[in-house]
Parts: sequence; structure tokens; C-alpha cells
Amino acid sequence: MKNRIRLIVPIITQGLRTEAHAAALGDDDTEISFVTIDNGPETIEGEFDEVFAKPDTVAKIIQAEQDGVDAVIIDCMGDPGLAAAREAVAIPVLGPCQTAMHVASMLGHRFSVVTVLCRLHPLLDNLASIYGVSGKMTSVRSVDIPVIELDKDPERLCRALAEQSIRAIEDDGADVIILGCTGMDGLADAIENELMKARLSGVPVIDPINAAISLAKALLRSKLSHSKRAFGYPRRKKIKGFNLPTYGNEE
Amino acid sequence: MKNRIRLIVPIITQGLRTEAHAAALGDDDTEISFVTIDNGPETIEGEFDEVFAKPDTVAKIIQAEQDGVDAVIIDCMGDPGLAAAREAVAIPVLGPCQTAMHVASMLGHRFSVVTVLCRLHPLLDNLASIYGVSGKMTSVRSVDIPVIELDKDPERLCRALAEQSIRAIEDDGADVIILGCTGMDGLADAIENELMKARLSGVPVIDPINAAISLAKALLRSKLSHSKRAFGYPRRKKIKGFNLPTYGNEE
Amino acid sequence: MKNRIRLIVPIITQGLRTEAHAAALGDDDTEISFVTIDNGPETIEGEFDEVFAKPDTVAKIIQAEQDGVDAVIIDCMGDPGLAAAREAVAIPVLGPCQTAMHVASMLGHRFSVVTVLCRLHPLLDNLASIYGVSGKMTSVRSVDIPVIELDKDPERLCRALAEQSIRAIEDDGADVIILGCTGMDGLADAIENELMKARLSGVPVIDPINAAISLAKALLRSKLSHSKRAFGYPRRKKIKGFNLPTYGNEE
Amino acid sequence: MKNRIRLIVPIITQGLRTEAHAAALGDDDTEISFVTIDNGPETIEGEFDEVFAKPDTVAKIIQAEQDGVDAVIIDCMGDPGLAAAREAVAIPVLGPCQTAMHVASMLGHRFSVVTVLCRLHPLLDNLASIYGVSGKMTSVRSVDIPVIELDKDPERLCRALAEQSIRAIEDDGADVIILGCTGMDGLADAIENELMKARLSGVPVIDPINAAISLAKALLRSKLSHSKRAFGYPRRKKIKGFNLPTYGNEE
Amino acid sequence: MKNRIRLIVPIITQGLRTEAHAAALGDDDTEISFVTIDNGPETIEGEFDEVFAKPDTVAKIIQAEQDGVDAVIIDCMGDPGLAAAREAVAIPVLGPCQTAMHVASMLGHRFSVVTVLCRLHPLLDNLASIYGVSGKMTSVRSVDIPVIELDKDPERLCRALAEQSIRAIEDDGADVIILGCTGMDGLADAIENELMKARLSGVPVIDPINAAISLAKALLRSKLSHSKRAFGYPRRKKIKGFNLPTYGNEE
Amino acid sequence: MKNRIRLIVPIITQGLRTEAHAAALGDDDTEISFVTIDNGPETIEGEFDEVFAKPDTVAKIIQAEQDGVDAVIIDCMGDPGLAAAREAVAIPVLGPCQTAMHVASMLGHRFSVVTVLCRLHPLLDNLASIYGVSGKMTSVRSVDIPVIELDKDPERLCRALAEQSIRAIEDDGADVIILGCTGMDGLADAIENELMKARLSGVPVIDPINAAISLAKALLRSKLSHSKRAFGYPRRKKIKGFNLPTYGNEE
Repeated sequence: MKNRIRLIVPIITQGLRTEAHAAALGDDDTEISFVTIDNGPETIEGEFDEVFAKPDTVAKIIQAEQDGVDAVIIDCMGDPGLAAAREAVAIPVLGPCQTAMHVASMLGHRFSVVTVLCRLHPLLDNLASIYGVSGKMTSVRSVDIPVIELDKDPERLCRALAEQSIRAIEDDGADVIILGCTGMDGLADAIENELMKARLSGVPVIDPINAAISLAKALLRSKLSHSKRAFGYPRRKKIKGFNLPTYGNEE
Repeated sequence: MKNRIRLIVPIITQGLRTEAHAAALGDDDTEISFVTIDNGPETIEGEFDEVFAKPDTVAKIIQAEQDGVDAVIIDCMGDPGLAAAREAVAIPVLGPCQTAMHVASMLGHRFSVVTVLCRLHPLLDNLASIYGVSGKMTSVRSVDIPVIELDKDPERLCRALAEQSIRAIEDDGADVIILGCTGMDGLADAIENELMKARLSGVPVIDPINAAISLAKALLRSKLSHSKRAFGYPRRKKIKGFNLPTYGNEE
Repeated sequence: MKNRIRLIVPIITQGLRTEAHAAALGDDDTEISFVTIDNGPETIEGEFDEVFAKPDTVAKIIQAEQDGVDAVIIDCMGDPGLAAAREAVAIPVLGPCQTAMHVASMLGHRFSVVTVLCRLHPLLDNLASIYGVSGKMTSVRSVDIPVIELDKDPERLCRALAEQSIRAIEDDGADVIILGCTGMDGLADAIENELMKARLSGVPVIDPINAAISLAKALLRSKLSHSKRAFGYPRRKKIKGFNLPTYGNEE
Repeated sequence: MKNRIRLIVPIITQGLRTEAHAAALGDDDTEISFVTIDNGPETIEGEFDEVFAKPDTVAKIIQAEQDGVDAVIIDCMGDPGLAAAREAVAIPVLGPCQTAMHVASMLGHRFSVVTVLCRLHPLLDNLASIYGVSGKMTSVRSVDIPVIELDKDPERLCRALAEQSIRAIEDDGADVIILGCTGMDGLADAIENELMKARLSGVPVIDPINAAISLAKALLRSKLSHSKRAFGYPRRKKIKGFNLPTYGNEE
Repeated sequence: MKNRIRLIVPIITQGLRTEAHAAALGDDDTEISFVTIDNGPETIEGEFDEVFAKPDTVAKIIQAEQDGVDAVIIDCMGDPGLAAAREAVAIPVLGPCQTAMHVASMLGHRFSVVTVLCRLHPLLDNLASIYGVSGKMTSVRSVDIPVIELDKDPERLCRALAEQSIRAIEDDGADVIILGCTGMDGLADAIENELMKARLSGVPVIDPINAAISLAKALLRSKLSHSKRAFGYPRRKKIKGFNLPTYGNEE
Repeated sequence: MKNRIRLIVPIITQGLRTEAHAAALGDDDTEISFVTIDNGPETIEGEFDEVFAKPDTVAKIIQAEQDGVDAVIIDCMGDPGLAAAREAVAIPVLGPCQTAMHVASMLGHRFSVVTVLCRLHPLLDNLASIYGVSGKMTSVRSVDIPVIELDKDPERLCRALAEQSIRAIEDDGADVIILGCTGMDGLADAIENELMKARLSGVPVIDPINAAISLAKALLRSKLSHSKRAFGYPRRKKIKGFNLPTYGNEE
């Protein structure tokens, strides 16, 4: 039977993920679905945006578990709602940032994240701290292109990513690069090519959504999920103003 | 002119803060007001609850700035929405957890936080990491009493807090204690007395709300607020499903 | 086409891995083979033993790449020869210790490793440092049973593992357990059951070989391997006393 | 009743603090006095100078407590004698360096200290370690002007401070600046203006003496002082060659 | 020619070091002299005492260099005046605490310091931070005997040291023990014997004064001294109230 | 009686150490011998080479102990086989890297290692982590000259070392330099001279082999060796393919 993995797109903008796209991310034994949240921000570019993205993201993850989905991935590099969703459900919930940072830590000596805007540096720094891999992250860099413009000029994006990746390698000592926005997915090969042209071959470029899907499959194969001792079910209580599916509760 | 400081109570339960209470927290040149959020959870006991507390907390903080309030304090030890609110406004926004952890770091060699439930240990651990004071925190301990029951049996609460504080001092090497829930406010003196009875005098017990109010005054006196370079204004964008006051935006 | 993954057993003792065993570790699209080294120690219980295990382990990994194997796993929790083998080949080389530590870091807040002998604690501590996850590891514990006796009394082993896991959870604050010797494989479910009996449910118990196989598949699926910038090909030079397959060399 | 706070100037040079200056630092409910030590160095520019500044600084702090002063601030960024004075008295003793570093940690993501001479970098680095905020300090920079010349050419000082602050922000990633010598007090606004001209607005510039006074008031308001468990009273013993006021002693 | 090493006893109590004692510490090619300071405290048991011990300690070290001594050791585990003295002179100045901590770090995996009084724990913790070996120190323990009583009942001292060392090994995971007061010198063998009786053989017990003398010889042999870039000569300036030999000055 | 110290040259290349050279390293009361391994690589330039150097290195160290040698030094900056050899013998086994890093930590505030090739940076980084001094190491730099060419053009080597040392001091804040390959021995004075010409005087340049010999003497003088609790004797077991002297075994 196929693994059923669902991407939760934590912004209200339609069209960033399409059926075709989701299908392309799947494989013979993995079915990828996706849902976009109904309430929340257009894009996520900081802590403020995340606050409004999280409630419906968590709700959609509870719904995913009730729909019988096997694992869930939050489709954003800030991993908005990751800990909260893990409290609410038992199926694996993956954040592309957490996954990519740990995969990068396993593949090299020092990694850099190349993201969209410099205003995200503290946020990514803090995530590295919480995920326990600060010592492996040598820098966060950015291309200075807002999320909403990522699609507009793919060549400019690619060039900027390559440029920052080269500086991460040469100036910061990185030997693994993480694409720092899930909207950059599909570009890893192109960046690796650019690096090779700059005589910097052998540097893995990690596409976080792709990595998260592969890791979700790995967890399912090993029958592993997050620790419910670390992420215990919330006590059920009144929550006003939000339409939540009934969520698991141990009490 | 008086400093106007507003407490944002990030839960919908009424009556935990009262006018009388707020008045008691103020002083000759400080006026303390409070607002309770309209949408969100009854109590906060984990990451899940926080997700639903944050949106209206942030909205109420934007409103506070527009009301001409001088500084804002989020009335919960998880500091829900702290970073997001700082992005949205320029007036000082304080979290009692961050404030208490830094004050404790200044007053002693190692501090412990004694909170309500052990399910909060990872959350407080992560905050210490992000706030940069992990090396000063020797332990998080808990009394195993849910937030909603804190008021029911003050003696039991006090006894349990003293017991865990004594263990924090003797077993974990703490020399400063932080009360780990803003619902424990007003108990610092009683715990210090209990510690003295156990021949453990001279250990400051920090009441985080009280500390946050004093620190808010300190920042106002020094005309300091959070760095807008670290917490840049969010780009204004469509945010569906939330009623937000117009918020500052540099674009 | 099936993924071809090879376990390298870095000790000369036969029979710890069998064809049946390897088959059981595989799945529909994964073929697991294994080789045992020809020269080296009977078991590995420290840095001394590892020194004699590494040369043939590395040689067998070079051979595996030349045989067209897709990925290699070193079948020992000390990950002997991991960095050296990665220098020599381009296919993914996984260590069960590194893999389990990063997977544990992703699944919980703090993990413990329960291994065979206390003499291995410094070695595992050092690996956690190098792998960058010291902050996530709360303790190393041991059952005080030599590797060669692991098979003799499975019930005693299981009891001892459960006992140490319980202490790791209750005394050290662990919420994920890693079985600290690949000779303990297949016991994860049994330990989880014991934990449940002790009312400590929801704590993942990670079987490192199983996790490494799943992660190898994940890397292959994402076309990722270790960074050749971090693990550059060795310059070819005379190496006396060892029979090495020709190994890749960029010079 | 007014808070009585006393600055202890730990050098023998007269005129750096004046009555007018102290008055300007006070406010409606705070009276600032100051004393200059009788024995010690002309200026403090390293560990050597500090050794001769500390004895009388500590003596003057004991005297301050006996004079009924409410809190004491050591008027030097090296915080000379801070721990020793805290052992000797119960009233709050504040160091501008410790205070500024913790306030900066609360206001931003990463701070830099801009001090007088590069020979002070190790000293400030070590203080950040002991105060537990190394992870928040991104750099120490210096203007290469000796303490005694700070007053001679204010414009040159201001220009140099602005220049180093800009480099701290742009090259080191700082988002909060600490003026690294209490002799630089009063310049924070000017530096913020310079930063704004360089299009680096929103970066708080912390004047450590001002911050320490505000924090002393905060501690007094919250009835908090340093932990006497961390800084226990010294056993009374013979101390030859120094004229000390009788100091508190628990024996 | 013999190495001339001088111990600086940073307390005014006579008789703790004797000519016979110093001779016993020397060897065929090492002449050990000692001086006791003229002004300062009777014993050192905290930061307060240190403040009054440092000035004459530093003066005596400047004098030692002018007397043609080859290297100097500060005879106290708090290393009082170490950094300041290194600024003032070019000959090697060693602290027994720094030396013992680094030697312990080289000999084992984790060390503990067993000192006189628990009030010294923060001081030793802070030294470990500054010396850069916090990660190797697993605990500080104390025997609760004041310095002045160390000589009174050697058997009680020895028993208490053994007891705390055993707990350090068994409970804290130490595998090297540092005697935490230079007044405990000569006891290392006795403690090792006690450990052997408790079946804890093979644990080095470091006598810090002995280790510092051996290391001073090592530095002299390798013609190494502290970095004058890290510990630059102080600018010569007026220092009132202290009789200082002329000290080196680069200006 | 003379100290007998033996260098173990962990590569098969003859002539890098000569009798004359060894004699020059000794002194009146120290006899330096050396052995070159029989099996292993020509040079060591990474983890791969080390794997093949370690077995005979460890064997030669066991032999040294049986020959009555007093202490052993592994003549390579990667310290290959250090932990394993310490398990096998009781006499002090020193690694030049570990020794130099700790000596450097004692002499300055921050040190840099200047090594042969950039491919060694991760290896040296990892050693600093394991040795517990990462916080003291500010950078690893390299001259980009393979080991085998070090002797060919001493002037070029010296110039390149000086250049990288200058950058380590000026750009990375180093105040102590470690020569990062034992093949660079004898060059410390020349580099110090070059630094002086660049007006960077007072920066110790550590020659690791020289430092290791001096420290071996220090340990012998203090009758200290590595902890056998940290480096316990290996259980004797079958090790196929290696000719090992009988090694100590506690069983």
C-alpha cells in the first residue's frame, strides 16, 4: 500500500502548489496530497506572518490525521506550528527546516542556509538553536527577493542563489547548502551546476521539501514518529474563535 | 506624566486579572491596565494552546500602541507572540519569561524555573536557548498542578513551590528561583519565607510579572526598545480570517 | 529498480548477520546484502578494537562502490571508519550512530543512548560532539553486558535495557531512547512495551540499523550523498601492508 | 521617598563625574551620588589596572551600604570588584557591563560592544562568558582611543564610534550596540543619529551607566538583590594593609 | 643552569610554605623559592578575599621578574592576579587552577575539582569558562573545611577528599580528580590509594602546585610564555596607594 | 636517570626523522628515540590515511611500553591512534595536537592552527571539539602545500606560514599560533621573526613536537598519566590480520 503524505501549505495563496506538482513529488509507493490553509497570510516572511499561519495549519494537520494520512509536512522553511501540531497528533509531522538542517549535519562538516530575506536570519538562527544544530550551521545568507517574487524571474533567483552559495562556501566554510525557502524547490540541481562551474563541486544542495518527503518515508518505514513524551497531547479545553476538528486528548 | 503599561492576558478566562489587581501592580508614576484576548484558549499549557493565543495577543498589542500605551507585557511565562508583536510595533514589548531569565542571570550564578506542569519543560528549555541564557539555567521543575487549579488551593501550591525550589537549590545548584507561571504572582515572598525556614536564605525568588513591570519602566526611563533591525516591521499583506488593526509597515 | 544497500560488518565474527537476517531488513524495493570483514577484531568494545576494524571496513566499502552498490552502512554503533570511507567513495556511507542521533534529535527534545558497557561512554560522547548534537543528548547509559554475550540471554538483555531506559527517562529527562549497539537490533518493540508497562508510553526507541537503512533509502531517493568538499578524495599514495581496491582520486 | 543610588568611580582621576553630571543622571524619585576612590589607578585599561582599582572600590561599596544607600553602581565597563562587593553587601551592586549585556540580549538578536582599545577585547569576552551571554555577543570592536583622551576630541570619538558600530552591524550582524566604556556616556543619541544617516535605523545604542541606573531602580522596585547564596558573606578575617569598614559576616 | 621558579603565596599567613617544603618541590635542575605577600588576607575563600590578595601578588611577580626568576606560580587555586600579572611581565606566570584544568583535560574524559568550601563553586565554574574547558569539567565538589583548618586534622581531610572524589567518579562521571586548594598539596597519592580501596583505580589525582611546577619547566624548556598580544603591557600611569616596582611598559 | 621518550612516526616514509634529529630534540636528562611504522601510508593527509596508519602505530606503542620506554609521542598532528593506544598501555601517550591545543589555550586568549591542506580543517575542528577547546580555537588555516613537499622549499613554506599566521592574528583575532603539521618542526622561531617584522610581536608560535616532549617530561615529573578509567584496558580478544605484541588486559 502506498504511503500517503500530505503537504500543508501554510499560506492562503493558491497555485504555489498544484496537483501536477504534488504528483511530481510522489513516487511509485508514495502519494502526495496537499491542502492550502483557509485563513492566514499570503506569504510568510517573519514571526508576525507565522502567528496568523499557525492556527489553520495545526487544524489542517489534525484533519489530515483524521483523514487517515500517514505523515504530514509543513510546506514552509519556518516550520510554523511544528511543535503544536506534534502535540495534537500521533502521525509524523515534519518541518522542512528541521529535516534539512539535520540531513545537512549528517552529510557535511558545516552547512549554510540561503534564504529569501535577511529579516529571516534571526528566525533561522533560533530554529537551529532549538533543533540542536547551531554548531553545524556556519551562516545564514539571503538573496533579498521577497517570497511573492520568487517565481517571477527564475534566472535572477538562480543566479542570486548560486552567488550566495559560493560566498557561503568560500567565506563561511560551508560544505553543504540548504535552500532556505520551500518556494525554491526544484532548483537544487541548477545550483549544483552553478557551483561546479565555479569549481566548487561535491557540495550537496538540499531541497528541503524533497528531503522532508524522503525523511517522512524513512520514518514511516521504521515505524517512528515524534516522541509523545516530548510533545504530549494538549488537555482539551475551550478555544474560542477557531474551528478545530476534535483533537486527541489523553485526559 | 505616568508611564502607561498594559498587560495583555493571552487567554480568554476572565477574572485572573482584575482592576484591583492591576492597580496593585502599579505605583505612583505607573499606570497598569490590562486587556484579555477575545479569541484563544482558556489557559496555556503548551505549544498547542499558544498557537491559538498568539493572533489576538498580537492584535491587542498593535491596538495598545495605537492607544498610546507606553509599553506592553504579555501576561504568560511562554511569552506567546513576543517576537511577532515586536515586529509589529515600536513600543517595548516584554515577555515575563525573557525578563525573569535575564534578571535571574544577573542576580546569581545559576537559576531554576519552577513551573506548573512537566509538559512545559521543553518549551522553557527552548526559550532559554533562544534568549541566550541556557548556560545560566540549571533546571526546570514543576509542581504538577494545572493552571486552572492554581487558585484553588493556595497553600498546596505554596508548599509544592517551596518543595521544588528546595530541590532546585540543593540538588541542581540553583541560587535564584523563577516562578514559572504568571498565575503564581504574589507568592515570591511566601516562598522566600519557606526557603528561610529550610535554612536556605538569601535566594531571590523572582515574580516574573513584577519583574517585567519594573523592567518595562527601566526601558522607558532609558528610552530603549527592542531593535527594529532584529524585529523589522512586517511587509503589509493580506491576512485572511483575522481582524487586525492597521499595523506599522515600512514599505 | 531496487536499491542495493550493503551492510559492512566491521568484526570477523561470523553469524551475527545472516542471509535471512539481511533479507528481513530489506523490503520490496530494497535489497540488503552484507559482508563481514576478513581482518580485524572479534567484537568492538572501544577505541582499541576500532583501530583494527577500520582498515578492512574501509576496503570493503571501496569494494562495495565498485560492485555497484548504491549505499553502504557500517554495522556498528561506533561508526568505525565513517569519515575515512566517505573520503574514499562517492556513494552514501551511513553510520548507525550518526543516523540514530540525528533522527532522535528530530523526534524529541532530549535523547539517551543505552549501550553495552560503560567503557564506551566517552566514545559515544565524543561522537555526539563531532556530529554536532551534544546539546540534544542527555545521557549515555549501559547494561554492562559484553557484545559477545548479547545473544546469550535475550530476556536479561531486554530487562536491563528497559531498566536503563526507564532511568534515562525519569532521571535524565530523556524522551527518545537509542539502542546503543547494533547487536541489539530487533529489540525496539520489546523495550517500548516494557516502557508502556512502566507508564512511560510514547517514547520512541530507535533501532539504529533499521533507522540507517531507512535513511539510506531517503538519501538515495533525494539523490543526496555526503559532501565531497567535507570528505575530499584522498591523494593516491603508497599504503604498505594493506590490500586495497583502487580508490577514487581526484589528482 | 527617593531611591538613593551611588556611583563608585573606580579610578582616582577627579572630574570625570561631577555633581552636575550626577544630578543629570537622576530623576524625580532618584538621587544619584558618586564617590571617587582614594587609592587606585588613573584610568582602567586592562586587568592590571583593575587589580589596583578593586580594593578601594569594594571598600567604598561597603561604606555606601553603611551610609544607607539603596543601590550601588560600579562606574566602569570592566565591572571591577562586582563579585567581591556582592559578597560583602546585601544591597544591589550593579556592573554596567553585566547590565548592558543582558539588556542588549533582551532587545535584539546579536549585540556588539564598541570599546576604547583592542587590548580590552579578551577582558570583555571573558565577562560575556561569565555573565552567560557569549552566544548573544557577535563581536567586540574598539575605536583605538585611550580612556584619558576620550574627552579631548568628542567629534573624533563620535565618528569613530559610529564607524565601528556600522561595521558591527554590517559585517558582524549586530542589531544592538553597547558603548564599551562608561566614559562614553551621553553619546548614545549621537551614535543612533549617525546610524540613521547610514540607513541603519532602529538599532538601539545602549549607554551602560544610564542602563545600570534604570536597572537599579527596577531591582529596588521589585525588592530584588543579588543572591546571597551565590555571593555569600566572606568570613571575617585579618586583611593587612587595607582600611576596610566593618563588613557583614554571617559567622 | 637550574631553572629558578618562584611561588607567590598570595596570603599573609606565614608557615604554610617553608624552605623545606619549597626544597622538596624542587629537583636537580629546578630551584623553587617562595615569597609571601606583605599585604592581603589571611586566607582566600572567595572573590572578596581575592581582591585584597591581588595587588601585592602582582607586585611580587613584577619583583620576581626583576630578580631574574625564570617563571612564577601563584600559590592558590583561584589563580588570583593571573591575567594582571601576565600583562605586567614577560616571564611565564602560571596559575595552578588553569594548569590543573588543562592537564586534567588532556589525561581524561571528564574531570572534577574537589575544593574546600561550596562558596567557591561559582568562582571555579567561572574560571573553567574563562579557561575554555567548561565542557570537560563535570562537577565541583567540596569537603566543607575552611582553608585555615586544612592542616589541623589531615586524616579527616583525606577521608573527606576521598569521599567526594568517589562521588565525583560514580555520580558525576569524573575520571580525573583535581585537588581544589593548593593547601591540599602532598595528598594526591593518599587519595589515589583510597580510590583504589574503593575499586576505582586508574583515576589520576592532580596536585595543582606540583602540576604547575612541572608545566613551568615544560614552558621554559620550550621557550614559551604567555602571549603578549593577549596580555599586553599596561600603559604606565599613576597608581595611588600601592608601592609597585617599575613595571614593563611598551609606550 | 634519563627520561626515555619515544616518537612513533605513523607513516612509512623514512628519513623525516633521523638519529641526529631525535638527539637534537632531547636534552641532558631526556633520551629521545623514534620508530617508524612498518605498515601504513607514506604521509597522512586526512581520515583515510589515518585509518591505515593507526594499527601499526598502536602496535609500536605497546612495544614501546614493553621496551621500558617512559612515555610515547605520536609524531603527527592528527594524533592518529591516541585514544586506542591509551587504552592499551599505562605509560603516558601524547598527541602533539592535543598538547599544542591545550598549551595554546593556557598561553593566550584565542589560538589558530596553520596546517598543510584545507582538507584537514574538519579533522582539526573535530579534534578541538573532542579535546574540549573549541571555544579557544578561532580558526584553522592552511598553506596549501602537501606534506611530502614540505621539505622541498623551506623558504616558500616559511613565507606561507607567516602569511597565514598574520591573517590568523589580524582577521581571526588569534594571539597564539600552532604549527599544524609535525613536519613543520623547527620553524617556530623563523615564524616569530616574520611576525615581528609585521609588527605582531609577542605571539607565541607553538612547535607541537617540541611542546609534546616538554609536556611528556612534565607528566613524568609529576608521575601522571592518562586516566585508565577513561581509557580502560581492552578485553583481550582475537584480532585477525595484525601482529600485535601481547597487550595489557585487566580481565
